[in-house]
Amino acid sequence: MADMADARQNYQALRTHIKETATLGSVSALLGWDQETQMPPRAAETRSNQFSLLARMHERQTSPKLGEMLSAVESSELIQDPFSDAAAIAREVRRSYNRATKLPATLVEEIAKTSVLAHQSWAEARKASAFKTFEPWLSKTVELQRQVADCIGHSGQRYDALLDEYEPGETTARVGEVLRNLRQPLVDLVGRISTSGKVAPVEIFDRRYPRDAQEKLAREASAAIGFDLSAGRLDVSVHPFCTDLGPGDVRITTRYDESDFSSAFFGVLHETGHALYEQGFLPEHGGTPLAAAVSLGIHESQSRMWENLVGRSSAFWRYFYPKAQAAFPDALKDVAADRFLFAINDIRPSLIRTESDEATYNLHVLLRFEIETALLSGDLSVADLPGAWNEKMKMYLGVAPPDDARGCLQDVHWSHGAIGYFPTYTLGNLYSAQFFEQATKDIPDLDGQLSRGQFEPLIQWLRQNIHEHGQRYRANELVQRITGGPLKPDALLNHLKRKAAEYYGV
Amino acid sequence: MADMADARQNYQALRTHIKETATLGSVSALLGWDQETQMPPRAAETRSNQFSLLARMHERQTSPKLGEMLSAVESSELIQDPFSDAAAIAREVRRSYNRATKLPATLVEEIAKTSVLAHQSWAEARKASAFKTFEPWLSKTVELQRQVADCIGHSGQRYDALLDEYEPGETTARVGEVLRNLRQPLVDLVGRISTSGKVAPVEIFDRRYPRDAQEKLAREASAAIGFDLSAGRLDVSVHPFCTDLGPGDVRITTRYDESDFSSAFFGVLHETGHALYEQGFLPEHGGTPLAAAVSLGIHESQSRMWENLVGRSSAFWRYFYPKAQAAFPDALKDVAADRFLFAINDIRPSLIRTESDEATYNLHVLLRFEIETALLSGDLSVADLPGAWNEKMKMYLGVAPPDDARGCLQDVHWSHGAIGYFPTYTLGNLYSAQFFEQATKDIPDLDGQLSRGQFEPLIQWLRQNIHEHGQRYRANELVQRITGGPLKPDALLNHLKRKAAEYYGV
Repeated sequence: MADMADARQNYQALRTHIKETATLGSVSALLGWDQETQMPPRAAETRSNQFSLLARMHERQTSPKLGEMLSAVESSELIQDPFSDAAAIAREVRRSYNRATKLPATLVEEIAKTSVLAHQSWAEARKASAFKTFEPWLSKTVELQRQVADCIGHSGQRYDALLDEYEPGETTARVGEVLRNLRQPLVDLVGRISTSGKVAPVEIFDRRYPRDAQEKLAREASAAIGFDLSAGRLDVSVHPFCTDLGPGDVRITTRYDESDFSSAFFGVLHETGHALYEQGFLPEHGGTPLAAAVSLGIHESQSRMWENLVGRSSAFWRYFYPKAQAAFPDALKDVAADRFLFAINDIRPSLIRTESDEATYNLHVLLRFEIETALLSGDLSVADLPGAWNEKMKMYLGVAPPDDARGCLQDVHWSHGAIGYFPTYTLGNLYSAQFFEQATKDIPDLDGQLSRGQFEPLIQWLRQNIHEHGQRYRANELVQRITGGPLKPDALLNHLKRKAAEYYGV
Repeated sequence: MADMADARQNYQALRTHIKETATLGSVSALLGWDQETQMPPRAAETRSNQFSLLARMHERQTSPKLGEMLSAVESSELIQDPFSDAAAIAREVRRSYNRATKLPATLVEEIAKTSVLAHQSWAEARKASAFKTFEPWLSKTVELQRQVADCIGHSGQRYDALLDEYEPGETTARVGEVLRNLRQPLVDLVGRISTSGKVAPVEIFDRRYPRDAQEKLAREASAAIGFDLSAGRLDVSVHPFCTDLGPGDVRITTRYDESDFSSAFFGVLHETGHALYEQGFLPEHGGTPLAAAVSLGIHESQSRMWENLVGRSSAFWRYFYPKAQAAFPDALKDVAADRFLFAINDIRPSLIRTESDEATYNLHVLLRFEIETALLSGDLSVADLPGAWNEKMKMYLGVAPPDDARGCLQDVHWSHGAIGYFPTYTLGNLYSAQFFEQATKDIPDLDGQLSRGQFEPLIQWLRQNIHEHGQRYRANELVQRITGGPLKPDALLNHLKRKAAEYYGV
C-alpha cells in the first residue's frame, strides 16, 4: 500500500517533470519557427544565444532525479498493463532518457563539432560535384555513428540502434524485409511505365499561377481537410515544415512558386497531414508521450495520405478542380479535369529524390537504405559510395547521374550524421497505403464522400485509430491493431498498380 | 592584488549572470510579441504555461549567489569611477536586485492575485460607468502599493519608491516641481487656443486611406528616419508596441484604420522612435544595463521626438507631403500642405487622454499625477476620486466628463497597480523638447536638413548623446550633460507656444 502510494507520487512527479520539459521544448520550437518565418537577418547571433541557453536548461532531461522517478515507476504495478498511460509513458521516457544519458559528453561534443564541419564540406563538395572533398568527413561521420550505436547498445546490428532514434522499437531486419519485398515489383512497374510511350502533360504547370490565388486555394484546401486555423497558422519559409508549439498551436509553412502550382499546393496538403496528427492528440495528455507521434514513419504516413492517397485522387479533384479553375482562370481554363489529373499523377524516373513522384520516390529511398546499412556494417567502403550509388540508380530507376552533385551528394542528411532516417520516408508511404486501404473498408463510400468534399469521416477515422493514441502503441502494434496484420508492401503496390493502369495503361 | 583579481572574477561572473537573465528575458519577449501578432487564439493556455515556466527560471534574479557577486563588485575599486562600466552595471543590478528581493513572496502573490481581480472589476466598472464597483479594488490596490513602497524603502515619501520603478533615481519632489511649473502656463495657453475661434480641419482624416498604401508609407517613413529593418520588423497588433528581443531584433507594431490616416502614421513614427533607441545601444554591452533604457521617461522622449517634434513639423512635411499625396491621391489631392499641417497640429481639450493632442496630453497626465500622489499619501480618499477628477478636468481643460467611463475609469494603469507610471509620459515630452532644442543648437540647419529628408545628423546626435550610453547616466545626469542644466518646462512650453502662434494666432 505504501509502495503503491510512493509509486503514484513518483508517477505524478515524473509527469510534471516531462511536461515542463515539453513546455521548454515548445519554447525552443517557437524560436525555430520565428527564425524561419519572421526573424530579421541581423538577429541570428541573438537567436543562437537564446537556443543555447534553453539547451543548457534542457539538461534536466539527463538529471539523476529523473532517472530515480523513472525507476520507481518501472518497478511498480502501475506498468503492469503494457498499454496503460503509465506504461507507455515510462517506456518512452526510458527510451529517450537512455539515449540522452548513454552517450558520453565527449562523443556528443565531437558529433556536434563534426556535424558543422561535415555539413560545410558537403555543401562545398556538392557545389563542385567533388565527392573526394566530402569523403573523409563522411568516413568520420560513419565512424562516430558506429560509436553512438555501441554506446546505446544493440544485439549485433548497429543500424538497429540508429533506426530506433526515428522509428522507436523498429528493427533493421523487419524494415529490410518489407523494403526488399517492395523492390522488384516496383522496379518492374516503373519500367513498364517508362516504356509505355505515354507521358503526363506536366507542361500545364509551367504557366503562371499568381501567388495570392495559390495561397487562397491552399488555405481553403487545408481548412477543408480539417486543419484548425484557430489553433494553428500557415506561413511562408524557404523549406516547408510543420512544427508543434504546444497544445493549441501547430504551425505549417510552404513556399510559393508562381510558375509551378503543384509544389505549394501538394506541399500544403502534406504539411496539413502532419498538422492534423499534432492537432489530433488529446489535450489531457499534452506534454507526455501520449500526445506525441509514434515515429517519423507514422508521422509521414499522415502527410503522405493527404498529399497522395487523397490529394492526387480523382475523387478529391471532382470536388476541388472547379475551385482550382476558378482560382487560375488563365492557366487552367483550357485544361480538362482528366488532363490535369494525369499531370499531377506523373510517374517517371529522375535523378533527384525530392523532385521525384509518389512511385519512384521509394526506389530513391531503398537505394539509400541499402547503402547506409552497408556503410555502417563496413560491407561498403565510403570511397566506393559513388560507384555503388550510380550502379543502383541504373538498376532500379534506369537513369545514370551525370555527376555526384546529382548523385550521392544530393541529400543533406548524412552530413548531419542522420543515418537511419531515410527509410522513414518509405515506411510513411507503406503505412499510409495500408491504413488508407483499411479506411476504405471501414468507411462506407469513402470515395463518394471525398468527391463531395466530405472529409470529416476520414479525419475522424484517423483520429480514433491513430492520432488519439499518441505513443501508446509502437508502430508495428498500431499497424496490427488497425489493419489486422503486419506491415506489407501490398497495399502500396496495389495503389501504384491501379494508377499505372489508369494513366499509363500498363 | 589578490582582491582586485577576485573582484574582476566576480565582475565577469556578474556580467555572465545578467546577460543570461537578459537572454531569458528576450525569450519571454518573443513569446509576448508572438502572442500579440501571430499566435492562434486556442494557444492561449499553452502560452501561459510557457510564460510561467520561464518566470520560474527567472528566479535566478533573486538568487543569493547574485547578491554575493554584486557585493564583491560593490566593495571593490572597480566602481570608484561612478560612470565606469562596472559602477553603472553594479548600480542598476543592485537596484533591480533590491526591488526583487525586498518584497516578501506573500505580498508579491497578493499583488498578482489582486491585479487580476482588480482588472476584471475595472473592466466591468468602466463598461457600466459605475465607479462604486471598482472602488474597493482600487482601495486595496493603493494599500498594497503602500506596502510595496514601505518594503522597498523611502525617506518619508512613499511615492518615491514607486516612481523609482519607472524613473530610476527620480524623486516626487523634483518631478512635482517641474510639473507644477508647467501647469498654469499650459492651462492658459490651451485656454487661449480654445477661444481663438480657429479650428483645425481634422475632417480631412475622415476620408478613405487604403490600408496597403498606409503600410507602405509608414514603412517608408520608418526606414527614412533610421529604423533598420534588417534588425527589426513592423507588424500589426491591437495595441501598438515596441519590443526588444535582444541585439539585432527590435520589433514594432501598429494598427491600420482606413478611415483615419494619422493614427497609424504617427503611431509608427512613435514606435520607431522607441526602436531607434533600442537599436542604438552598443552591441558589446548587450544584455547589461549599459544596453538598456535609462527610464521610461527617457524612452518616451525618443518616441515623442520623432512623433511630435519632427513628425508634426512643417520641415518634415515639406519632404514627406508629396509622398503622402502620391500614396493617397483620392483623399489628399485637394488638400494643400498648410491645411494638412494645421490638421495634424490640432490642439483642443478633450475627455480621453489617449486621443488627446501634444499639448493637452500633459494636462491629462498632470491631473493623474496629482491624484495618485494624493491617493497614496491619503490626502485624497478613493471614494472622493470621481469628484476630484471631474473638478480638475474642468479647471485644467475646461471640459466635464459626462460619466466615469469617460472620466476616472478611462485608464487601465491603476487596475494593474501601476501607480507612478503616468508622469513618465509628460517627462518624455519635457525631455524630448529640451533635447530637441539642444539638437537645434548643435546641428547646423537642422530644420533645412529635415525638410530635405536628411535625418542622419539628428539620428547620429541622438545616438552619441543618448542611445550609446544605455544606463551609464541617470536621467537627471543625462539632461544636465546634454543641455547644460536641469529639466525645466521651458523648452516644451516654447515649442507649444510657437505652434499656438503659428496655427491659432495666439
